Amino acid sequence: MNLRLTLEEVFLLIPDAESEGDAQVEELAGIASLESAQAGDLSFLSNAKYKSQVEGCKASLILLPTDYSGKPKADQMYLRIKEPSRGLAAICRHLEERVFPPPPPTIHETACVHPEAVVGEGVSIGPFCYVGSRAIVGKGSSIGSHCHLGDDTQIGESCRIHPCVKILAKCVIRDRVILNAGVVIGSEGYGFEQVGEAHEKVPHLGKVVIEEDVEIGANTCIDRARFDETRIGAGTKIDNLVQIGHNVKIGKGCLIVAQVGISGSVQFEDYVVVGGQAGFGGHLKVGKGAKIAGQAGITKDVEPGAFLKGNPALPFQLAQRISVLQRKLPELFNRFAEESSNK
Amino acid sequence: MNLRLTLEEVFLLIPDAESEGDAQVEELAGIASLESAQAGDLSFLSNAKYKSQVEGCKASLILLPTDYSGKPKADQMYLRIKEPSRGLAAICRHLEERVFPPPPPTIHETACVHPEAVVGEGVSIGPFCYVGSRAIVGKGSSIGSHCHLGDDTQIGESCRIHPCVKILAKCVIRDRVILNAGVVIGSEGYGFEQVGEAHEKVPHLGKVVIEEDVEIGANTCIDRARFDETRIGAGTKIDNLVQIGHNVKIGKGCLIVAQVGISGSVQFEDYVVVGGQAGFGGHLKVGKGAKIAGQAGITKDVEPGAFLKGNPALPFQLAQRISVLQRKLPELFNRFAEESSNK
Amino acid sequence: MNLRLTLEEVFLLIPDAESEGDAQVEELAGIASLESAQAGDLSFLSNAKYKSQVEGCKASLILLPTDYSGKPKADQMYLRIKEPSRGLAAICRHLEERVFPPPPPTIHETACVHPEAVVGEGVSIGPFCYVGSRAIVGKGSSIGSHCHLGDDTQIGESCRIHPCVKILAKCVIRDRVILNAGVVIGSEGYGFEQVGEAHEKVPHLGKVVIEEDVEIGANTCIDRARFDETRIGAGTKIDNLVQIGHNVKIGKGCLIVAQVGISGSVQFEDYVVVGGQAGFGGHLKVGKGAKIAGQAGITKDVEPGAFLKGNPALPFQLAQRISVLQRKLPELFNRFAEESSNK
Repeated sequence: MNLRLTLEEVFLLIPDAESEGDAQVEELAGIASLESAQAGDLSFLSNAKYKSQVEGCKASLILLPTDYSGKPKADQMYLRIKEPSRGLAAICRHLEERVFPPPPPTIHETACVHPEAVVGEGVSIGPFCYVGSRAIVGKGSSIGSHCHLGDDTQIGESCRIHPCVKILAKCVIRDRVILNAGVVIGSEGYGFEQVGEAHEKVPHLGKVVIEEDVEIGANTCIDRARFDETRIGAGTKIDNLVQIGHNVKIGKGCLIVAQVGISGSVQFEDYVVVGGQAGFGGHLKVGKGAKIAGQAGITKDVEPGAFLKGNPALPFQLAQRISVLQRKLPELFNRFAEESSNK
Repeated sequence: MNLRLTLEEVFLLIPDAESEGDAQVEELAGIASLESAQAGDLSFLSNAKYKSQVEGCKASLILLPTDYSGKPKADQMYLRIKEPSRGLAAICRHLEERVFPPPPPTIHETACVHPEAVVGEGVSIGPFCYVGSRAIVGKGSSIGSHCHLGDDTQIGESCRIHPCVKILAKCVIRDRVILNAGVVIGSEGYGFEQVGEAHEKVPHLGKVVIEEDVEIGANTCIDRARFDETRIGAGTKIDNLVQIGHNVKIGKGCLIVAQVGISGSVQFEDYVVVGGQAGFGGHLKVGKGAKIAGQAGITKDVEPGAFLKGNPALPFQLAQRISVLQRKLPELFNRFAEESSNK
Repeated sequence: MNLRLTLEEVFLLIPDAESEGDAQVEELAGIASLESAQAGDLSFLSNAKYKSQVEGCKASLILLPTDYSGKPKADQMYLRIKEPSRGLAAICRHLEERVFPPPPPTIHETACVHPEAVVGEGVSIGPFCYVGSRAIVGKGSSIGSHCHLGDDTQIGESCRIHPCVKILAKCVIRDRVILNAGVVIGSEGYGFEQVGEAHEKVPHLGKVVIEEDVEIGANTCIDRARFDETRIGAGTKIDNLVQIGHNVKIGKGCLIVAQVGISGSVQFEDYVVVGGQAGFGGHLKVGKGAKIAGQAGITKDVEPGAFLKGNPALPFQLAQRISVLQRKLPELFNRFAEESSNK
């Protein structure tokens, strides 16, 4: 990675930083962890547990918290800043367009855009995309190769849709949404009527609405609603390979880690956090700010602010205590057997 | 959603219903739950637990079971029918083509169909589809955009294949099958020979057969067999993101919920039901009508009719009882410590 | 399956085999298990537990271990060989090109290859593929339909990339790699800075490197690194629907079964084996040769050679013992209650 990032750019990006020492370079070659950084690189201390690595770090420039007390080596500069990780994020956002230049704001010659579709200003539509009838793509959005935007879909402004995303008919994507490769929005819900021994399909006539600033990971699937809508609230971030069933409502600012499964009609309030591979039974309500540990199995409503773990899920502290006691079961059984035989 | 569904159509679709009251509308605007329905909508009572919501429901038309005893409001009609949910399903199936008009029965100009492929009457082949050599698509089937039908694949009649489905060489899809977006049929099985420390690939020369009336959810993967076939039985319904390994045989009428994983050579008899995220070790047999709870881990053969839960999986009742007792472990350890110290 | 495999070919493929009896056929029709093989087929005993099935097997030719002592029937030939499963694998590899003929070594007329891409000798690029600027495809590799090779990607020699694989910008695939349909390489990592109640995106500027002889299953996702690289070591085999987070490093020769989830920055040493649906928390180290049972939840570093099971994960033997004791909890609680009441 040759970033061609000048010191001057860094100073402009984090104007509140205080410098000490002299980096002896004008351009930084890369960004790396304290342990792996070489001369010419930028490094950072964003987690106190790596503090001891700062002294041995070879980077030319190190972002540090304001209370870090050491001194830079010769040919090294310290930049002290209140929140180094935010400073680093600002630098990375600046670099992102350099590392991954945005696609040209044009419709690729191999794309197929329905004459009744409406494509905004500065939109990029990639190779082999299909944009259906009456679909709308808002200004500044980019659509990667091999995407399918079904009839009557709506894409907001400044969205980034990666290759091979499938947005099926009538679904709505608001502004600044990021959909990673292979995402499916608006698949048919899993619902059947039992008729004798057979399962008759229940059509799903609704849609999916993805609100502003949502990000969705690769190959994640979100089913359309039976009548109205499945909805993902603004600012929610969903990881890869997550399953979200029909009629689910997710609140704002939730975090849903990879491979989580959320059954039909579940409702999340805002700021719920769910660890990887956790699962939710149908029709449950999960209160504001609840935290669910990875691999937990949720079969009942969850109170706001609760922190649950395990399957069946229990309050985190209790689950931890039971885990410890389970490891002592062999000892307990032995002692019980002993005492019984002593009587 | 403006459905343009007339009362007359409703009467024709559920001729055995008995009406009471006057809806005061000729066309229904939408379908909604008892709680969210507005004047002009159709609503329904399909689950007794929502019975108390009927009285306050604003819908113009409500489907109710024959034994519901209340009276409609002014400007409201009750339609009493033996099974309201089946009546509703009949209406939804009727509406489905209106909400999602079927694609035109033609081959899209951007599709690439091998000259040796055989495409039946009334087939729709979407944009950027590839249909391989000697592939057969039965009459009335629709193939969404960006699909891949490999050489020698066979698709039955009246199938609905959503965008970006990949059906690899020689696989067979029977009549009336629905495959959601991103499904992969016929990927290479996961099998290796250990040679020293290396793992040598074992080729998978077989195929996958999907029988009549099967539905498969988005991004689900089904591997081809080593020599003969992986087979999904008629009427089985599989949800999103499910993994089905090589040589698996699934019986008829099974229900397999999202993110389930079924290892190679597992055999399901008919009418098995599996909750989300459950997993099955290789080469197991699961008896007719067995039920497996979500997230269960199955490592042994399962008897017909069994209902299992947990990992390791136990009979449901026993698993529930053990869950209750685990929550009492802290108390048990305390009391045991107390009694021991009293001696 | 008509294999048109002659006895002469078999003898050439496994020259060290010793024959007994007379198959009475010149060409073998198929390959099948001992139980299902018919006259004309090839069968094999690769697992001692099926030994009793050899005597009743109808196959014309049976691969057997050298110490198998029975006698072939009339019209049947035994071929004794040190490792029958390796002999079978050799035959299957020979047949693979006959059953699935490799695609023609040309660029399909519908593919779109950037003028600055570099395509090696004998490369096959399938229908509707997009090959980006400065992408390199090594000689003898085949790229299935609908693939996306982003700008600056590198594909090694003799790779087999199945349909609809998405390799995003700058990612590197070494020689002889197999990627199944729907795989995503280089999706954005899941990382955010919390700013008040909002989650600000942390850009992921790094790439993914897939080393030699790796195989990756259908719809599996591997995220790009924050700065440097996510890396999958040579010879590692990954099954379908696996999630591998940003900055993960997987060693050589690992086996990772379907639906496993590996969080960001996890490091596996060589020869780690992970059962299906297991999950790993972030930043963990897993030692050489460790084995993790299916559905296990790993939240701490794992020692080399360890064998863990459960969530929280415990040494396999201890986890098994605790499982047995848990089933005895009802009895223990009963006896304890009894003894307490007797005092």
